[in-house]
Amino acid sequence: MSEKDFGVRENGGELSIPASTETGMSRLSLSDADKEARDWFVETAKAQGCKTTVDTMGNIFAVRPGLRNDAPPTFAGSHLDTQPTGGRYDGILGVTAAVEMLKVLNENWVETEYPVGVVNWTNEEGARFPISMVSSGVWAGSIPLEHAHNLREVGGGTATMKSELERIGYLGSVPASHTSIPMAAHFELHIEQGPILEAENRKIGIVKGVQAYRWFTVTVRGGDCHTGTTDFKNRADALLAASKMILQSHRAATRMKALASTGILTLRPGSTNTVPGTVRFSLDIRAAKDETVEGLEKQLKRDFAAIAAGEDVGNLNEGGTPGKPCEVEWRTDSVSEAIGFHEDCISCVTESARGIFGDKAEDLTKSMISGAGHDSVYTSKRVPTSMIFVPSKDGVSHNPVEYTSPEDCALGAQVLLGAVLRYDRM
Amino acid sequence: MSEKDFGVRENGGELSIPASTETGMSRLSLSDADKEARDWFVETAKAQGCKTTVDTMGNIFAVRPGLRNDAPPTFAGSHLDTQPTGGRYDGILGVTAAVEMLKVLNENWVETEYPVGVVNWTNEEGARFPISMVSSGVWAGSIPLEHAHNLREVGGGTATMKSELERIGYLGSVPASHTSIPMAAHFELHIEQGPILEAENRKIGIVKGVQAYRWFTVTVRGGDCHTGTTDFKNRADALLAASKMILQSHRAATRMKALASTGILTLRPGSTNTVPGTVRFSLDIRAAKDETVEGLEKQLKRDFAAIAAGEDVGNLNEGGTPGKPCEVEWRTDSVSEAIGFHEDCISCVTESARGIFGDKAEDLTKSMISGAGHDSVYTSKRVPTSMIFVPSKDGVSHNPVEYTSPEDCALGAQVLLGAVLRYDRM
Ligand SMILES: NC(=O)NCCC(=O)O
Ligand SMILES: NC(=O)NCCC(=O)O
Repeated sequence: MSEKDFGVRENGGELSIPASTETGMSRLSLSDADKEARDWFVETAKAQGCKTTVDTMGNIFAVRPGLRNDAPPTFAGSHLDTQPTGGRYDGILGVTAAVEMLKVLNENWVETEYPVGVVNWTNEEGARFPISMVSSGVWAGSIPLEHAHNLREVGGGTATMKSELERIGYLGSVPASHTSIPMAAHFELHIEQGPILEAENRKIGIVKGVQAYRWFTVTVRGGDCHTGTTDFKNRADALLAASKMILQSHRAATRMKALASTGILTLRPGSTNTVPGTVRFSLDIRAAKDETVEGLEKQLKRDFAAIAAGEDVGNLNEGGTPGKPCEVEWRTDSVSEAIGFHEDCISCVTESARGIFGDKAEDLTKSMISGAGHDSVYTSKRVPTSMIFVPSKDGVSHNPVEYTSPEDCALGAQVLLGAVLRYDRM
Repeated sequence: MSEKDFGVRENGGELSIPASTETGMSRLSLSDADKEARDWFVETAKAQGCKTTVDTMGNIFAVRPGLRNDAPPTFAGSHLDTQPTGGRYDGILGVTAAVEMLKVLNENWVETEYPVGVVNWTNEEGARFPISMVSSGVWAGSIPLEHAHNLREVGGGTATMKSELERIGYLGSVPASHTSIPMAAHFELHIEQGPILEAENRKIGIVKGVQAYRWFTVTVRGGDCHTGTTDFKNRADALLAASKMILQSHRAATRMKALASTGILTLRPGSTNTVPGTVRFSLDIRAAKDETVEGLEKQLKRDFAAIAAGEDVGNLNEGGTPGKPCEVEWRTDSVSEAIGFHEDCISCVTESARGIFGDKAEDLTKSMISGAGHDSVYTSKRVPTSMIFVPSKDGVSHNPVEYTSPEDCALGAQVLLGAVLRYDRM
């Protein structure tokens, strides 16, 4: 890839984000592009005879009536927002497959026992407003509405979720809550975003749960000073300390069979010849078990404090010059606990896959845990929930090259339809 | 210091720069604030009977006639721009002391043999437009005018030096060149920006030269991927690699008794749950000798390539998980060679200090090398040049707490005046 592909300027140190590429999407939550996708969703659902409701988080619920309408609908859905440089499948597949479900039901004059619905959740990615699944979190009563409304976009802008919902005309009046908008169940088709299904030549992941994760913002404070006149021992270099912390988080996660990642880092003042006095970075830690994530958090809090104080953690100081101490401060941005999905929903998915694959179901499906968070994490706190995965080429996601074949997408959509119809009859 | 002092937003990861603080300045080159300071300089110099000239780099030259005007003026000067969060002395002292010199000459009806001048150089800091001393570099014929004019501001803006010179009305018509605007000599009073004079209880640094330095922009390219679904061995994590490089640059510089610093780092795409595919950072390396800087550059080019390839440099991979390789690319932004100042100028400064301190001159002055670059580096390529340092409290510079006492500033200004008058008579 060339400089041009990255929209990189000739001079200066700034990297800018290109617009959507041929195979990628840049549809940050509540942007103009997101409004377009939402408008498409509302129109399409209405054309399929659905009643649509927008809640106070901009979640959009489209409902197709059943034979009996005295019980809540069974929902299928996901999200239409993407990463700044995301793909065309993450989230989008789950919504478009659910819309396809509506069309199949209508074209075949299928009458369900109870209503079925399709939902598009707001800001699932957490890329623009830095809590993932924030709007299903509000719906589930896990995140206060006000906290979510006041979330500001990352990158220094002043827009909040509320101001952007208003701006694009998607601040609904119905409370974002499982009591105002009840569901019988929630099914979500999604790309795996990892390499397992492809590597094992399987077509469908029967998702039994989601691993735990926590997001933090870590701020390191040292002191600005001149790069040419300040010797190493007189520096409190916040970036050198942050570099050690990032490396140490990788090592500790390796040891604990967990994950640790930094995706955002900003520093101040940002001048070639000034040692940065302040560095702020995101930290995303994950593991299958809540205890592991908690253990890693505790370990890193100790390690980062020691690194900031100038102590030698993991020989990282070796061969360097001890400087002056920095300060380190943690802020917890979000906590997503490990989740086990509902037996009833898991068996609807299993049965649906068996209906399609017959004898080969054993070979072509796999029971698995999700590495990524999904809105199903929050719906599962209130209603029976489960998920369906389809293979991701090379396991790649959050990248324009994200890819799932049309055949695999179609298989996933078929399993989704079968699972919803099975649940409806339960 | 609290979050508020840093102008830090409640949510999100962005750190913003506050306006000038009580003891600091934020007067980036060619900003509105810089225009104000320039207007003050021009008015003041004119009020002192000087003829002022603005060249094609916005350098401002103010000349006071001598008894004979058939030879070029002896100049004193420095710069009025600052770091984004700079102090009140770096550069500014050298200009205000030179203006003070004009006033002293006028108030005392002093007639010099030849003209004397005061110069304000543009963008000395290299903080906004990322080459330090760029405009004295053009004047000296070391940097092409077009290259300088096309320099873009750091931080993603689209302004260039030329567009900003035009905008604030300081794009002069006289060529920025030592041939169009000749000098007999260049003297520069500056704060030390380091701890030596204060630690040794000395008042004046007689600067014999400036250490060598080079600035680079290093780009590391891996691949964007999902933080939750991509295990460590399938990542090409550009930030993890950059963290190792920054740490390694510190270690190699320590070993070679040199300096290495990173003041700017940007990454892409910048989302909590996406492993950064691209990281770009500044690298500033310095040492007394050109050979040491060249040796460190060579060493780091080898080390960074090995780190990007996944090899274990300095045990940095220990305890981590080997991932996929990244690519690394270097761009040289500027090279400032080690400089020795002119014997004649050094002796004018030495004599001037002796005239003031008498017997105590030996104890109160120190012959030294500058850790920072100054416009005198470039003037010394064309005309006899030297510098005068005064103490910096705690050795701190490029920081709002930068401080030099009024007494020390006055002593520096006195030595400057004496040196210029001595040179004028030579
Ligand atoms: N599916 C997905 O990418 N969700 C975003 C939340 C996460 O970071 O896991
Ligand atoms: N004096 C000063 O801070 N100059 C900026 C150039 C450098 O980085 O040394």
